[in-house]
Amino acid sequence: MSFHRMWAQLLPVGRDAGTGGYRRYAWTGADADCRAWFEEQARARGLAHETDRNGNQWAWLGDPAAGDAVVTGSHLDSVPDGGAFDGPLGVVSAFAALDALRDRGARPTRPLGIVNFGDEEGARFGLACVGSRLTAGQLTREQAHRLTDGEGITLPEAMEAAGYDPDAIGPDPERLARIGAFVELHVEQGRALDLSGDPVGIASAIWPHGRWRYDFRGEANHAGTTRLADRRDPMLPYAETVLAARREAQLAGAVATFGKISVEPNGVNAIPSLVRGWLDSRAADQAALDTVTAAVEKAARDHAAAHGVDLDVVRESFTPEVGFDHALRDELGRILARDTGHRVPVLGTGAGHDAGILSASIPTAMLFVRNPTGVSHSPAESAAEDDCVAGVIALADVLEGLACR
Amino acid sequence: MSFHRMWAQLLPVGRDAGTGGYRRYAWTGADADCRAWFEEQARARGLAHETDRNGNQWAWLGDPAAGDAVVTGSHLDSVPDGGAFDGPLGVVSAFAALDALRDRGARPTRPLGIVNFGDEEGARFGLACVGSRLTAGQLTREQAHRLTDGEGITLPEAMEAAGYDPDAIGPDPERLARIGAFVELHVEQGRALDLSGDPVGIASAIWPHGRWRYDFRGEANHAGTTRLADRRDPMLPYAETVLAARREAQLAGAVATFGKISVEPNGVNAIPSLVRGWLDSRAADQAALDTVTAAVEKAARDHAAAHGVDLDVVRESFTPEVGFDHALRDELGRILARDTGHRVPVLGTGAGHDAGILSASIPTAMLFVRNPTGVSHSPAESAAEDDCVAGVIALADVLEGLACR
Repeated sequence: MSFHRMWAQLLPVGRDAGTGGYRRYAWTGADADCRAWFEEQARARGLAHETDRNGNQWAWLGDPAAGDAVVTGSHLDSVPDGGAFDGPLGVVSAFAALDALRDRGARPTRPLGIVNFGDEEGARFGLACVGSRLTAGQLTREQAHRLTDGEGITLPEAMEAAGYDPDAIGPDPERLARIGAFVELHVEQGRALDLSGDPVGIASAIWPHGRWRYDFRGEANHAGTTRLADRRDPMLPYAETVLAARREAQLAGAVATFGKISVEPNGVNAIPSLVRGWLDSRAADQAALDTVTAAVEKAARDHAAAHGVDLDVVRESFTPEVGFDHALRDELGRILARDTGHRVPVLGTGAGHDAGILSASIPTAMLFVRNPTGVSHSPAESAAEDDCVAGVIALADVLEGLACR
Repeated sequence: MSFHRMWAQLLPVGRDAGTGGYRRYAWTGADADCRAWFEEQARARGLAHETDRNGNQWAWLGDPAAGDAVVTGSHLDSVPDGGAFDGPLGVVSAFAALDALRDRGARPTRPLGIVNFGDEEGARFGLACVGSRLTAGQLTREQAHRLTDGEGITLPEAMEAAGYDPDAIGPDPERLARIGAFVELHVEQGRALDLSGDPVGIASAIWPHGRWRYDFRGEANHAGTTRLADRRDPMLPYAETVLAARREAQLAGAVATFGKISVEPNGVNAIPSLVRGWLDSRAADQAALDTVTAAVEKAARDHAAAHGVDLDVVRESFTPEVGFDHALRDELGRILARDTGHRVPVLGTGAGHDAGILSASIPTAMLFVRNPTGVSHSPAESAAEDDCVAGVIALADVLEGLACR
């Protein structure tokens, strides 16, 4: 099945008619549709299909028990109103690259795997890369069981409702031990390749990044009758903190964003009792990130105190800087230089990925495909058709170079 | 049935076990339970009960067709996680005052009515006082039919689901023409009576007030990979506007509040495409209110432009200053001074009420009962038992003075 045909099949799944964005959240109907699509692709190619106990899907050419497998893939879930490329491009390109290998008559000497990691975006339960974190032992079953979505449904309840066993989740070192290399292809989420004029690049490192929940607790009251002096309005220190985050990020050459908020009671004529905001911050190194997050928290505490508002700051997730495996990265560079005739750029990224999680356990690498606008996590996210094809060819070259020696 | 018994019956209806606050929204199950309670109170007292075509409930002693009726009452619905007193205190006190009149052996010479106005808080459809506005011709059927709740359910759909006919709604001048005076008792939503040391007060006027929706539209993008310079983040001008509103209200001796927000896509790692905030502002006079709202809008436009964000500002509702009927107000003052032996304070308020809506059509007045903390629209809203009793006695005095001449 051609890249185009696969792409067209996936395109309508979980797409919101109003926004044009994707709402493929873990363990929902849209997620199940994506999984069915993946299984069908495996079946159509005669690949062995399995879903592991952490909800990751695998399609195998050759027996993974033989060990030293080469695996590629990405994820099919999305952020709220996300774009079509973030995740699916890596999975569709994986199947298309396998097809290209077969067309070339290449004969793999290592097992070849294609993976769809579950719940990469964390859109529903607030924690990214749940499937790969569980597998790599970076998230315990107990921690995962405490994850709860915005409706109060726990992760175990959601898994059970989708027909999976939440008690079976947990580290899977045997599975990882059979993998010799994992290569994830992903649409770039910035404009570096657009600025350098390259269709494809190789990842150097993922910036350290984290998410912090800021709970500003004040006192609900009538917006029309409560004197300003009598108020404990948590929206005010929240607003100051949003501005402080931008200011501090600018100073440190980092990024900091308040993109998610939850307000109680959220009534037009009620002073809020609670404003909960989530800070996402990333920087090129740990010291810069620490500087930003400490300064934002200090500003938040000062402003909360000035308004008689209580503040709790909870770090909900954190990923230290991830430097991808140097040997594998260099090998990818050599393969692509040989096949394309020129040096492929190596670039860092502020986005987290399953490849970043797995890099602590096995050699991993990433390929990026040019994004002409840099826009991602939005329906406007895009990649040119030619660049997608270049990505498939590069991935096929890499698989051939690694697995068909 | 005693005040206490009535109060205890209403107390659990629509109360959220988690917050302890009330969620009695128009045309929901909790609303139906409140309506059933009202009808039962009417029945138990041998009063004629009817629900008018705008969803307001009436209980009558004597035939309203005789005209020049004296009506008291309030509403039973709530803001999100509201308190027990805002609304219900006026309805329960109405029945209790009628009981007190009968105990005194008073013989009304005018029809006496008790009313429960529908959808006063506007918690579900965003517009306050829908029942009284429709009756008074201040909201047309066409406008009401366009009201939609947060789930996309229209007001006609909600009414129909609750068993009411949405096509019958509209102005009801015949009903209003039969009412000679409307007196609403309400818990005070500020601390004026607490500061003056009085259990009961009389309303002078309702401050002019309005609600404005601010739509900041930027561009959704990845929070980790989008350079600050490439962002069009609507959360930033929103935050600036929240702070400007507080500043301008302070300068003008007014109040201004952003208590409700809606963000899209509202993802931890996504720059928002839309931040929608609602401004509630009120001031002692129109000029002060105009000054505040113009300055907030100017600040919002300046900051939106600086961030490449589009801004729409829509005035969703507006109520000019309401001065209650002077003759009726003075008569209440005379009655209460005679019965209590001292002058009862007269005070303005920043809160809207059905009495304010009706004051354009018929003579209306309000009684306030002391609120020791000033807190309202919150589960912490309270009134002392003695003050509630003082309110019932004052209301009974007023009904006797007006209707038993």
